[in-house]
Amino acid sequence: MINVGKQIIGFETSADAREMISSINTSTGEKMASFSVATITEVDRAVEKATAAFQIYRKISGVRKAEFLEAIADEIIGIEDELITICCAESGLPKGRIEGERGRTVGQLKLFADLLKEGSWLDARIETANSERVPLPKPDIRSMQMPFGPVLVFGASNFPLAFSVAGGDTASALAAGCCVVVKAHPAHLATSSLIGKAINKAAISTEMPDGVFSLLFGDGPVLGGLLVKHPDIKAVAFTGSFGAGKAIYDMAVRRETPIPVYAEMGSTNPVFILPQALLEKSQSLANGFSGSVTLGIGQFCTNPGMLIYESADAAPGFIQKLEEEFRQTSGGVMLTGDIYKSYTAGVEKRSGMSGVETLAKGNYTANLNVASPILFKIKSDLLKIHPDLSEELFGPSSVIVEANSKKDIIEIAKNLSGHLTATVHGTDSDLVEYKDLLDILEQKVGRLLINGFPTGVEVCSAMVHGGPFPATTDQKTTSVGTAAIDRFTRPVCYQNMPDKLLPDELKNENPLSIWRLVNGNLNKEVIK
Amino acid sequence: MINVGKQIIGFETSADAREMISSINTSTGEKMASFSVATITEVDRAVEKATAAFQIYRKISGVRKAEFLEAIADEIIGIEDELITICCAESGLPKGRIEGERGRTVGQLKLFADLLKEGSWLDARIETANSERVPLPKPDIRSMQMPFGPVLVFGASNFPLAFSVAGGDTASALAAGCCVVVKAHPAHLATSSLIGKAINKAAISTEMPDGVFSLLFGDGPVLGGLLVKHPDIKAVAFTGSFGAGKAIYDMAVRRETPIPVYAEMGSTNPVFILPQALLEKSQSLANGFSGSVTLGIGQFCTNPGMLIYESADAAPGFIQKLEEEFRQTSGGVMLTGDIYKSYTAGVEKRSGMSGVETLAKGNYTANLNVASPILFKIKSDLLKIHPDLSEELFGPSSVIVEANSKKDIIEIAKNLSGHLTATVHGTDSDLVEYKDLLDILEQKVGRLLINGFPTGVEVCSAMVHGGPFPATTDQKTTSVGTAAIDRFTRPVCYQNMPDKLLPDELKNENPLSIWRLVNGNLNKEVIK
Repeated sequence: MINVGKQIIGFETSADAREMISSINTSTGEKMASFSVATITEVDRAVEKATAAFQIYRKISGVRKAEFLEAIADEIIGIEDELITICCAESGLPKGRIEGERGRTVGQLKLFADLLKEGSWLDARIETANSERVPLPKPDIRSMQMPFGPVLVFGASNFPLAFSVAGGDTASALAAGCCVVVKAHPAHLATSSLIGKAINKAAISTEMPDGVFSLLFGDGPVLGGLLVKHPDIKAVAFTGSFGAGKAIYDMAVRRETPIPVYAEMGSTNPVFILPQALLEKSQSLANGFSGSVTLGIGQFCTNPGMLIYESADAAPGFIQKLEEEFRQTSGGVMLTGDIYKSYTAGVEKRSGMSGVETLAKGNYTANLNVASPILFKIKSDLLKIHPDLSEELFGPSSVIVEANSKKDIIEIAKNLSGHLTATVHGTDSDLVEYKDLLDILEQKVGRLLINGFPTGVEVCSAMVHGGPFPATTDQKTTSVGTAAIDRFTRPVCYQNMPDKLLPDELKNENPLSIWRLVNGNLNKEVIK
Repeated sequence: MINVGKQIIGFETSADAREMISSINTSTGEKMASFSVATITEVDRAVEKATAAFQIYRKISGVRKAEFLEAIADEIIGIEDELITICCAESGLPKGRIEGERGRTVGQLKLFADLLKEGSWLDARIETANSERVPLPKPDIRSMQMPFGPVLVFGASNFPLAFSVAGGDTASALAAGCCVVVKAHPAHLATSSLIGKAINKAAISTEMPDGVFSLLFGDGPVLGGLLVKHPDIKAVAFTGSFGAGKAIYDMAVRRETPIPVYAEMGSTNPVFILPQALLEKSQSLANGFSGSVTLGIGQFCTNPGMLIYESADAAPGFIQKLEEEFRQTSGGVMLTGDIYKSYTAGVEKRSGMSGVETLAKGNYTANLNVASPILFKIKSDLLKIHPDLSEELFGPSSVIVEANSKKDIIEIAKNLSGHLTATVHGTDSDLVEYKDLLDILEQKVGRLLINGFPTGVEVCSAMVHGGPFPATTDQKTTSVGTAAIDRFTRPVCYQNMPDKLLPDELKNENPLSIWRLVNGNLNKEVIK
């Protein structure tokens, strides 16, 4: 139990303010600890330190940065049970889930460490000089990716480890060579503090510069606003609601010097069930879908909030199985009281809408902040009158949409806004027949799944956890997987730079043995 | 001589409006032709056609898109002398320059064609499934780049061929698989019309869809505003002034669905002369710099608008040579009357500022729109009082800044905003001694040149013609070179997609024999 949690500002801690915010046990409502709210001076100090540290950190080799990331992973493992206990209490999530998430967090850090050790991610491009070329000689041009500078990361509520203080955004920004200032999410302040201390221990033990990492506590809009508008913050990463993400984006693009905002704002992740699959797999579909909607109390960005099927002979049987399966699901404690309130209000609103049928409810106990799973059913026409039914309702709920025909299905797909994922269940012949549906969906999402469920995001080199607006504010990026590192770098080119002054990645000798595009050809060769 | 120039809307032409704008011979002020102004209906029609055509064009193979780009190049060459004559008259630029620019334009189109034929640019990434993995099986995940949709390109005044209707932005957007709507620059309407027709001929002969390309004429803010705000426009490319570029950016980020704006807004491109170089190369530096400032009447984004040197024994000799060399330079007709007016006003303002010395003037004849080259000299302290002296003045002018010490040089560098380029002239020992200057400059620019001049931008795979704001609105991109194609695509991933439904780039067989990142390893292998 912490008495007063302090800001972590580089290698110092600080608690200037008398104003406090509390860490709350979401299952009991009990206060677990108090945290001092960051003052303007503390914010400035954190960014100032990050800016100074960046001049050192950006020059540190990939191998040494990898050691830092690996040390963070080790330090997190080293916190042992205290981390699990506190994180479960703050988030309401069960032990198994938090242990799994710790594994994922550590795995992500190691994945980026491996990427740095291999080194080719920097996209080195070399065009050698040709003094004989007419009419003008060709200069020597060499380019590679370089980090931006201090990056602001907002901790996310729904992944208190994997997308919070040492989560994917922090790991990828540190890997890119940026210093990081994290705004702790109020839903898990004590967890954040533990992880922040672990990062700092790792920074000290691997001799990283003071200021490579800071962690600040405070009110979202106030502290977030100060940081987003700070002239020395060069980019922002955020995972959370559309409202908060869009507000951050709007602030950032209105700065005197606009900065990129990588906001992953969730989506409805529509699931389409094609006719043959409906006929052949109705039991496993009903089971799999119910599980995906209620997994983690529905608190995933990739939670399937909409299922679309075509009315057919097989449909009533499928709907009945869905009802039966969904009645077996269970609710649970939500991440925060606010999330619970907002879920309940959304459910209440939908329940009261004309044309919206309550198809099934899951089990739950009427305890503090415990969400009850609920499945709604509508006819597709209602989407035209109430397009908000296709918007995300964060929690264990989904809307089953009955379409009249293939044409209707295609119309629904065409009218979709940007989503993180879309899923299609179909037999081989379904998929061929509905190729036009796939063609539309791939233009609406970051990830198109066949015969699966969108929850569960593989952390790998090919993952795209992103998508067109409003799923994210930058459809060119992913926040999961190795490509997430690209968000924090920009290309720089050197013209006629003497070899010895070039970064190692671009030297003739190719001392790091990385892949490079040399005069248009990809190779690992030494340049003579 | 055209009577009334018409909008090119896919394969149709149209001139609904009575309102006209004129093509002007910038040297004589004579009207060369009238062009009908695009109506709202015509704008909608062009975007509607682009949107429909996109559904076909995005599926066309890289090899066939390459044929289209090569056909555009051939059609441009086929216009022969008419293009050169009209372009010279509208732009005031000499024949040799326009011929060279035509070569560059054609070369760019062919460079992108080659990129498409090779095919690896799509960044294919494949992670194969592993059903044995615990605790959860690994799905099959495959990702690649996909085009956005219709792209709006603003023709630039200063490269009436290479950065206008069929210039780098159009070539890279078409190569990416996007359909393009160009807003013709009012400075060269007849040139634009000729090129637009050439593109359409190429589209027809290579059987591209109607709507893959359109060209509209009209008033900048009105027509530009309609297009930027059009909900079906998915990205914008622009080269021009900070004012216009920033206005476009502000509109685009305030849309209901924000879209990316790639605005290259020019910069001052500071040139630093280090002490030994000043001593050893003063004659060639004076000559080279004077040439770079006045090349193309100073109408380049990379024109060096500031030269910084350290006061030393050798300095007065250098300044004297600079004076002598600059007096040999010549002015010429500027691209438009407005550009001339704005240059003249800027020169007048600087001439009248206390502390600003007029070091030298070039030759010119007092004809219509003819700019006079002028070199100003200031002490570095004045930059603190008048930071606008470090802003771009578009035309054949530059500011010579005398610094007091190395410390002063470093301070100036630290205070720089984002620029397209920075240049350092130094001997080997200078460069070692001023390594900290290079470290600062690489963080301020897209391209760092050693012992050269920034004018002349090599079109190649390693070029970065971009840089931090305010040089551009997206420092992650380049508008010159093959990497410019990346501006118009986003990654999409497929999870467990049947092989036969995958794009060729991601199929097991690797039918296009492209480089792919397979389970983290780069290779061209077939997946078994």
